[in-house]
Amino acid sequence: MANLRTAQDAGPRSSLHIPSYVSGYFDGEGCFSVAIGPRPSLRVGWEVRPSVSISQNGDRAEVISHIADFFACGSIRPDPSDRTVKWETRRLLDLTDVVLPHFRRFPLLSGKNGDVQTLDAICRLMLSRLHLTRGGLLRIARMAQSMNPSGIRRYDVDTIARSCEVKA
Amino acid sequence: MANLRTAQDAGPRSSLHIPSYVSGYFDGEGCFSVAIGPRPSLRVGWEVRPSVSISQNGDRAEVISHIADFFACGSIRPDPSDRTVKWETRRLLDLTDVVLPHFRRFPLLSGKNGDVQTLDAICRLMLSRLHLTRGGLLRIARMAQSMNPSGIRRYDVDTIARSCEVKA
Repeated sequence: MANLRTAQDAGPRSSLHIPSYVSGYFDGEGCFSVAIGPRPSLRVGWEVRPSVSISQNGDRAEVISHIADFFACGSIRPDPSDRTVKWETRRLLDLTDVVLPHFRRFPLLSGKNGDVQTLDAICRLMLSRLHLTRGGLLRIARMAQSMNPSGIRRYDVDTIARSCEVKA
Repeated sequence: MANLRTAQDAGPRSSLHIPSYVSGYFDGEGCFSVAIGPRPSLRVGWEVRPSVSISQNGDRAEVISHIADFFACGSIRPDPSDRTVKWETRRLLDLTDVVLPHFRRFPLLSGKNGDVQTLDAICRLMLSRLHLTRGGLLRIARMAQSMNPSGIRRYDVDTIARSCEVKA
């Protein structure tokens, strides 16, 4: 977490507290999600993909660069289809060691904080490798289903459970 | 600025600095605009309407209430058409004495800060009642035209200038 850490970045007369600014920005624009998709090479047949991301119009994309510098992880990807730029991290250790601790210390104030807490709990279960077991996977799928839909969750718990049973 | 002023609001373990969170939230979701529309009862024939506003989906509208409490001005209005809730202030003295001083002290980090500074300059001209003169009105119209279009500016500088000349 480098460039955005000091208030001087915002100008000599600024009193801005950058970590709190980042949380406010994410409360409006951030996305905390868990996608679960088929992955035949895994024993349970399904892969759990946690993600934290944020998008901005290309003409104001400088904030996305600031956020990438701030968390010092994730990657930036332009999306030409809707002229946005997206920062995203899906790496479990970046989420558990860098991104989610930030949002525990500087929490969102909207109901979206519930999604952050659910994502945090799912990532902890994944650290314990529970997502590689049928019971753990279904527990995670139920937790993910309680999160605000972000458009990337294509399979519901029943579908995952039925598929697990076939493979078991 | 009351309810949101202390970090305790965000939970006992929170280190959140609320004013900086508010600026981050506005950098993503806030709208800083100046609408200019016909108003025959004014000598120059046009009214200048500065505005700061922010919208959120109705299911996460609690942040909008927090922001209204924080600034202790403006009003909240639900928009049934797109299921959003909007906080907005258009009162000049609220803008010059409460809202804009906040964003000078805790500035936005994106290019949107240019809109804030232009709005700030326009409000100062309005405090000096320059918007009630032809020259001041056209100066303000040119400044407003440089701001990010927000969809509510219906008349361009040339239209305003021609109308002013007819009335002069």
